[in-house]
Amino acid sequence: MNISRRRPTIGVFDSGFGGLTVLKALLELIPGADYLYFGDTARLPYGSKSVETVARYAVEAAHYFEAQGAELLVIACNTATALALDRITAAAHVPVVGVVEPGAEAAASVSKNKKVIVVGTEATVSSHAYRKALEARGLDAREKACPLLVPLVEEGWVEHPVTEQVARIYLDEAFADGFREADVLVLGCTHYPLLKPLLRRAVPSHVSIVDSAESTARAVAGRLQKLLPPTPAVHEERRVLPRLKFFATDSVEKFRRLGERFLGHPIDDVQHVDLKE
Amino acid sequence: MNISRRRPTIGVFDSGFGGLTVLKALLELIPGADYLYFGDTARLPYGSKSVETVARYAVEAAHYFEAQGAELLVIACNTATALALDRITAAAHVPVVGVVEPGAEAAASVSKNKKVIVVGTEATVSSHAYRKALEARGLDAREKACPLLVPLVEEGWVEHPVTEQVARIYLDEAFADGFREADVLVLGCTHYPLLKPLLRRAVPSHVSIVDSAESTARAVAGRLQKLLPPTPAVHEERRVLPRLKFFATDSVEKFRRLGERFLGHPIDDVQHVDLKE
Repeated sequence: MNISRRRPTIGVFDSGFGGLTVLKALLELIPGADYLYFGDTARLPYGSKSVETVARYAVEAAHYFEAQGAELLVIACNTATALALDRITAAAHVPVVGVVEPGAEAAASVSKNKKVIVVGTEATVSSHAYRKALEARGLDAREKACPLLVPLVEEGWVEHPVTEQVARIYLDEAFADGFREADVLVLGCTHYPLLKPLLRRAVPSHVSIVDSAESTARAVAGRLQKLLPPTPAVHEERRVLPRLKFFATDSVEKFRRLGERFLGHPIDDVQHVDLKE
Repeated sequence: MNISRRRPTIGVFDSGFGGLTVLKALLELIPGADYLYFGDTARLPYGSKSVETVARYAVEAAHYFEAQGAELLVIACNTATALALDRITAAAHVPVVGVVEPGAEAAASVSKNKKVIVVGTEATVSSHAYRKALEARGLDAREKACPLLVPLVEEGWVEHPVTEQVARIYLDEAFADGFREADVLVLGCTHYPLLKPLLRRAVPSHVSIVDSAESTARAVAGRLQKLLPPTPAVHEERRVLPRLKFFATDSVEKFRRLGERFLGHPIDDVQHVDLKE
């Protein structure tokens, strides 16, 4: 039996760096895999762009991944998932996992009051992808756009009083009126896991925080079990280190520097990619 | 004499909305012209991107403008000017005016201490385009990247206490040590004119604020006088309303909505443009 067949190649796609929080969760849960990470940094952020633009970019990236041998695609970007998962799935020849469904599923499993707040970018919120996914599970959802949180994370102000103030302004607006008793906060943007300790302090103590990066990693593990049923050899492989390869459409140097903050460990093998523009 | 020859067509280019502050200054100074405004909103912001990427985008836009009949190009984006003015000028067949030289010229004319602070995006600051332009005029310059100010302006928080706090953090770092006696603050980003009242309060009272949008409009007026020497008919034309046409690479609706805030009056004729990507 060819051992390389049991080592899946997983393509992880994001507009930039945020998806590295999903990759981090994947590495913890599924270390015995080869990962290709694609950050479309020349065209980030997607959060403020239209559905047509985001869909076009994401489908291009999906095709690039397939050409590189990816057997499963993770759309590690809430905006791309919210706006373009259908189109990516239709255009791809391998299974595609987005971040919205796993996040909604996790929220549904922990919410007692059936009232949930979702925070994300402007584009993710406008798409109402989370609200639809949560309502389909019988939950009431309020979505709140927090456009300043991504730039604050990228400035490195993850424990800064200004960030806490901004977060409180957004969250006070979200947890108001009919949603005072909401008991789950879904982090609907892959940048936000870096703010988890700060957000923990800013929400009422009865609120659970659902990190869609972690939920997505669990969904990917489940999908892989169906694709590649575990064999005794797989368990041995768990001790093997994952192999990582990074692709960025803008500066490789900047990707390395900023990316390490999101991934939590050094990034070496970054390759510059020019899409067809 | 053909009157349309005396009505120049001016192409104004920016990555998004900020360049509308330059267009606003142009409309006040040169109302008797036809303006084409191009906002590359599908690929904004340029401020965090590399020189190669920004140069490629800006040259594409320059060619688009020429095809539309522009006789003079204004690069109303500090990042594109700082990173790519040489390449745009080389690739264009009509005169090109950037925002850096006019801003530096204005700073040199008002600074008594010959010490200047320039605030801008990360990419503009890293290019040191302002420092070079100011040093060439015998001034000492310190450049300070303020990556949070653009998202704060786009959030509409132009008079918000959080924005004032962020501005004070950046400016305190800038006006420190050897630059306590700096007497000019150059707004090296076309979003910042919207923050002028707030920045006025955040800098020491002896500091003059140079708005490169206004300086650029004056430079364009000077260039036009050479290209199209004034005739008596031109003065009559000053009472004629300018004609405006807008092009955006992302959502037209969003351009209209956000753009009005920057331009200060309604935006009607917006056309969607797909560049060759």
